[in-house]
Amino acid sequence: MGDKPIWEQIGSSFVQHYYQLFDADRTQLGAIYDSSSRAKQLLLKNSLLPFQKIQHSITAQDHQPTPDSCILSMVVGQLKADDDQVLGFQQTFLLKNIQGAWVCTNEVFRLALHNV
Amino acid sequence: MGDKPIWEQIGSSFVQHYYQLFDADRTQLGAIYDSSSRAKQLLLKNSLLPFQKIQHSITAQDHQPTPDSCILSMVVGQLKADDDQVLGFQQTFLLKNIQGAWVCTNEVFRLALHNV
Repeated sequence: MGDKPIWEQIGSSFVQHYYQLFDADRTQLGAIYDSSSRAKQLLLKNSLLPFQKIQHSITAQDHQPTPDSCILSMVVGQLKADDDQVLGFQQTFLLKNIQGAWVCTNEVFRLALHNV
Repeated sequence: MGDKPIWEQIGSSFVQHYYQLFDADRTQLGAIYDSSSRAKQLLLKNSLLPFQKIQHSITAQDHQPTPDSCILSMVVGQLKADDDQVLGFQQTFLLKNIQGAWVCTNEVFRLALHNV
Protein backbone atom coordinates (compact mmCIF):
# COMPACT_ATOMS: atom_id res chain seq x y z
CA MET A 1 0.00 0.00 0.00
CA GLY A 2 2.84 2.36 0.88
CA ASP A 3 3.90 2.95 -2.71
CA LYS A 4 0.45 3.85 -3.94
CA PRO A 5 -0.76 7.47 -4.11
CA ILE A 6 -2.89 8.44 -1.13
CA TRP A 7 -6.05 8.86 -3.20
CA GLU A 8 -5.65 5.32 -4.50
CA GLN A 9 -5.23 3.96 -0.98
CA ILE A 10 -8.32 5.81 0.23
CA GLY A 11 -10.37 4.97 -2.84
CA SER A 12 -9.54 1.28 -2.86
CA SER A 13 -10.11 0.99 0.90
CA PHE A 14 -13.50 2.63 0.49
CA VAL A 15 -14.48 0.38 -2.40
CA GLN A 16 -13.43 -2.76 -0.53
CA HIS A 17 -15.34 -1.67 2.56
CA TYR A 18 -18.42 -0.71 0.54
CA TYR A 19 -18.86 -4.05 -1.22
CA GLN A 20 -18.00 -6.11 1.86
CA LEU A 21 -20.67 -4.21 3.78
CA PHE A 22 -23.14 -4.42 0.90
CA ASP A 23 -22.72 -8.19 0.60
CA ALA A 24 -22.73 -8.84 4.35
CA ASP A 25 -25.52 -6.51 5.50
CA ARG A 26 -26.59 -3.69 3.23
CA THR A 27 -28.77 -2.11 5.88
CA GLN A 28 -25.50 -0.90 7.47
CA LEU A 29 -24.43 1.09 4.41
CA GLY A 30 -25.85 4.40 5.65
CA ALA A 31 -22.71 5.27 7.57
CA ILE A 32 -20.60 5.61 4.44
CA TYR A 33 -22.72 8.36 2.91
CA ASP A 34 -22.59 12.10 3.37
CA SER A 35 -25.76 12.70 5.36
CA SER A 36 -26.66 15.79 3.36
CA SER A 37 -26.35 14.11 -0.01
CA ARG A 38 -28.85 12.44 -2.23
CA ALA A 39 -26.97 9.21 -1.79
CA LYS A 40 -29.17 8.34 1.17
CA GLN A 41 -32.04 8.11 -1.23
CA LEU A 42 -30.12 5.50 -3.14
CA LEU A 43 -29.56 3.66 0.10
CA LEU A 44 -33.28 3.52 0.69
CA LYS A 45 -33.66 2.11 -2.78
CA ASN A 46 -30.93 -0.44 -2.08
CA SER A 47 -32.71 -1.62 1.02
CA LEU A 48 -35.82 -2.21 -1.08
CA LEU A 49 -34.07 -4.28 -3.73
CA PRO A 50 -35.82 -7.64 -3.93
CA PHE A 51 -33.01 -10.07 -3.25
CA GLN A 52 -31.92 -11.96 -0.18
CA LYS A 53 -28.23 -12.38 -0.80
CA ILE A 54 -25.81 -10.72 -3.15
CA GLN A 55 -22.15 -11.07 -3.98
CA HIS A 56 -20.05 -8.45 -5.76
CA SER A 57 -16.67 -9.05 -7.34
CA ILE A 58 -14.52 -6.23 -8.62
CA THR A 59 -12.98 -6.56 -12.07
CA ALA A 60 -11.24 -3.18 -12.18
CA GLN A 61 -11.15 0.04 -10.21
CA ASP A 62 -9.69 3.48 -10.90
CA HIS A 63 -9.23 6.38 -8.50
CA GLN A 64 -8.32 10.00 -9.19
CA PRO A 65 -7.94 13.11 -7.04
CA THR A 66 -10.15 16.04 -8.08
CA PRO A 67 -9.47 19.80 -7.93
CA ASP A 68 -11.86 20.10 -4.95
CA SER A 69 -9.85 17.56 -2.92
CA CYS A 70 -12.34 14.80 -3.53
CA ILE A 71 -11.61 11.34 -4.88
CA LEU A 72 -13.35 10.04 -8.00
CA SER A 73 -13.63 6.24 -8.14
CA MET A 74 -14.96 4.10 -10.98
CA VAL A 75 -15.55 0.39 -10.49
CA VAL A 76 -16.30 -2.29 -13.07
CA GLY A 77 -17.40 -5.63 -11.71
CA GLN A 78 -19.83 -8.49 -11.57
CA LEU A 79 -22.60 -9.34 -9.16
CA LYS A 80 -24.74 -12.34 -8.42
CA ALA A 81 -28.07 -11.83 -6.67
CA ASP A 82 -29.75 -14.89 -5.16
CA ASP A 83 -29.73 -17.60 -7.84
CA ASP A 84 -29.83 -15.23 -10.80
CA GLN A 85 -27.21 -15.23 -13.51
CA VAL A 86 -24.01 -13.25 -12.98
CA LEU A 87 -24.37 -9.69 -14.27
CA GLY A 88 -21.78 -7.04 -15.05
CA PHE A 89 -22.10 -3.62 -13.44
CA GLN A 90 -20.48 -0.20 -13.45
CA GLN A 91 -20.43 2.07 -10.42
CA THR A 92 -18.95 5.49 -9.78
CA PHE A 93 -18.35 7.10 -6.38
CA LEU A 94 -17.36 10.61 -5.43
CA LEU A 95 -15.68 10.67 -2.01
CA LYS A 96 -15.18 13.78 0.10
CA ASN A 97 -13.44 14.35 3.39
CA ILE A 98 -16.02 15.84 5.76
CA GLN A 99 -14.92 16.55 9.32
CA GLY A 100 -12.04 14.11 9.07
CA ALA A 101 -13.94 11.20 7.56
CA TRP A 102 -14.13 10.12 3.92
CA VAL A 103 -17.76 9.78 2.92
CA CYS A 104 -19.62 9.21 -0.34
CA THR A 105 -21.43 12.29 -1.64
CA ASN A 106 -22.41 10.87 -5.04
CA GLU A 107 -22.96 7.41 -6.44
CA VAL A 108 -23.98 6.18 -9.88
CA PHE A 109 -24.82 2.55 -10.61
CA ARG A 110 -25.72 0.72 -13.81
CA LEU A 111 -26.14 -2.94 -14.63
CA ALA A 112 -24.36 -3.91 -17.83
CA LEU A 113 -27.48 -5.72 -19.01
CA HIS A 114 -27.99 -3.81 -22.21
CA ASN A 115 -24.42 -3.10 -23.20
CA VAL A 116 -22.99 -6.38 -24.46
CA MET B 1 -34.82 20.07 -22.45
CA GLY B 2 -36.69 22.65 -20.39
CA ASP B 3 -38.12 20.16 -17.93
CA LYS B 4 -34.81 18.51 -17.13
CA PRO B 5 -32.70 19.61 -14.17
CA ILE B 6 -29.92 21.99 -15.16
CA TRP B 7 -27.14 19.52 -14.29
CA GLU B 8 -28.72 16.98 -16.62
CA GLN B 9 -28.93 19.50 -19.44
CA ILE B 10 -25.28 20.49 -18.96
CA GLY B 11 -24.07 16.92 -18.51
CA SER B 12 -25.90 15.52 -21.52
CA SER B 13 -24.82 18.45 -23.71
CA PHE B 14 -21.22 17.87 -22.66
CA VAL B 15 -21.39 14.14 -23.32
CA GLN B 16 -22.96 14.63 -26.75
CA HIS B 17 -20.33 17.23 -27.67
CA TYR B 18 -17.49 15.07 -26.35
CA TYR B 19 -18.29 11.99 -28.42
CA GLN B 20 -19.17 13.95 -31.56
CA LEU B 21 -15.81 15.67 -31.32
CA PHE B 22 -14.01 12.44 -30.49
CA ASP B 23 -15.49 10.65 -33.49
CA ALA B 24 -15.06 13.56 -35.91
CA ASP B 25 -11.58 14.79 -34.95
CA ARG B 26 -10.17 13.80 -31.60
CA THR B 27 -7.22 16.16 -31.94
CA GLN B 28 -9.72 18.95 -31.14
CA LEU B 29 -10.67 17.51 -27.75
CA GLY B 30 -8.20 19.63 -25.78
CA ALA B 31 -10.63 22.52 -25.44
CA ILE B 32 -13.03 20.58 -23.26
CA TYR B 33 -10.51 19.88 -20.51
CA ASP B 34 -9.51 21.93 -17.51
CA SER B 35 -6.02 23.05 -18.51
CA SER B 36 -4.64 22.44 -15.03
CA SER B 37 -5.95 18.91 -14.75
CA ARG B 38 -4.41 15.59 -15.49
CA ALA B 39 -7.03 15.06 -18.14
CA LYS B 40 -4.72 16.60 -20.71
CA GLN B 41 -2.45 13.65 -20.23
CA LEU B 42 -5.32 11.41 -21.19
CA LEU B 43 -5.83 13.51 -24.26
CA LEU B 44 -2.24 12.90 -25.29
CA LYS B 45 -2.87 9.22 -24.86
CA ASN B 46 -6.03 9.46 -26.94
CA SER B 47 -4.16 11.10 -29.76
CA LEU B 48 -1.73 8.19 -29.76
CA LEU B 49 -4.40 5.50 -29.95
CA PRO B 50 -3.72 3.37 -33.02
CA PHE B 51 -6.96 3.66 -34.94
CA GLN B 52 -8.00 5.77 -37.90
CA LYS B 53 -11.72 6.09 -37.31
CA ILE B 54 -13.92 5.48 -34.33
CA GLN B 55 -17.61 5.64 -33.61
CA HIS B 56 -19.15 5.85 -30.14
CA SER B 57 -22.79 5.17 -29.32
CA ILE B 58 -24.25 5.91 -25.91
CA THR B 59 -26.36 3.26 -24.25
CA ALA B 60 -27.09 5.13 -21.02
CA GLN B 61 -25.94 8.25 -19.21
CA ASP B 62 -26.48 9.58 -15.69
CA HIS B 63 -25.72 13.03 -14.32
CA GLN B 64 -25.67 14.28 -10.74
CA PRO B 65 -24.81 17.59 -9.08
CA THR B 66 -22.07 17.38 -6.43
CA PRO B 67 -21.65 19.36 -3.18
CA ASP B 68 -18.81 21.36 -4.80
CA SER B 69 -21.08 22.54 -7.62
CA CYS B 70 -19.60 20.11 -10.10
CA ILE B 71 -21.47 17.62 -12.28
CA LEU B 72 -20.70 13.91 -12.13
CA SER B 73 -21.52 12.04 -15.35
CA MET B 74 -21.33 8.31 -16.01
CA VAL B 75 -21.72 6.94 -19.51
CA VAL B 76 -22.19 3.36 -20.65
CA GLY B 77 -21.86 2.74 -24.36
CA GLN B 78 -20.33 0.94 -27.28
CA LEU B 79 -17.56 1.85 -29.66
CA LYS B 80 -16.25 0.56 -32.92
CA ALA B 81 -12.68 1.35 -33.91
CA ASP B 82 -11.70 0.82 -37.56
CA ASP B 83 -12.91 -2.64 -38.54
CA ASP B 84 -12.63 -4.15 -35.07
CA GLN B 85 -15.58 -5.75 -33.31
CA VAL B 86 -17.95 -3.54 -31.35
CA LEU B 87 -16.83 -3.17 -27.71
CA GLY B 88 -18.66 -1.95 -24.65
CA PHE B 89 -17.13 0.83 -22.57
CA GLN B 90 -17.72 2.78 -19.37
CA GLN B 91 -16.64 6.38 -18.91
CA THR B 92 -16.97 8.84 -16.06
CA PHE B 93 -16.52 12.61 -16.28
CA LEU B 94 -16.33 15.24 -13.58
CA LEU B 95 -17.34 18.67 -14.93
CA LYS B 96 -16.59 21.96 -13.25
CA ASN B 97 -17.54 25.52 -14.10
CA ILE B 98 -14.30 27.47 -14.40
CA GLN B 99 -14.55 31.13 -15.36
CA GLY B 100 -17.99 30.65 -16.85
CA ALA B 101 -17.26 27.55 -18.91
CA TRP B 102 -17.99 23.91 -18.06
CA VAL B 103 -14.80 21.90 -18.47
CA CYS B 104 -13.74 18.35 -17.65
CA THR B 105 -11.39 18.09 -14.68
CA ASN B 106 -11.41 14.28 -14.38
CA GLU B 107 -12.08 11.41 -16.73
CA VAL B 108 -12.02 7.65 -16.25
CA PHE B 109 -12.37 5.20 -19.14
CA ARG B 110 -12.56 1.40 -19.27
CA LEU B 111 -13.30 -1.00 -22.06
CA ALA B 112 -15.81 -3.67 -21.03
CA LEU B 113 -13.56 -6.34 -22.53
CA HIS B 114 -13.12 -8.42 -19.42
CA ASN B 115 -16.44 -7.93 -17.74
CA VAL B 116 -18.95 -9.99 -19.72
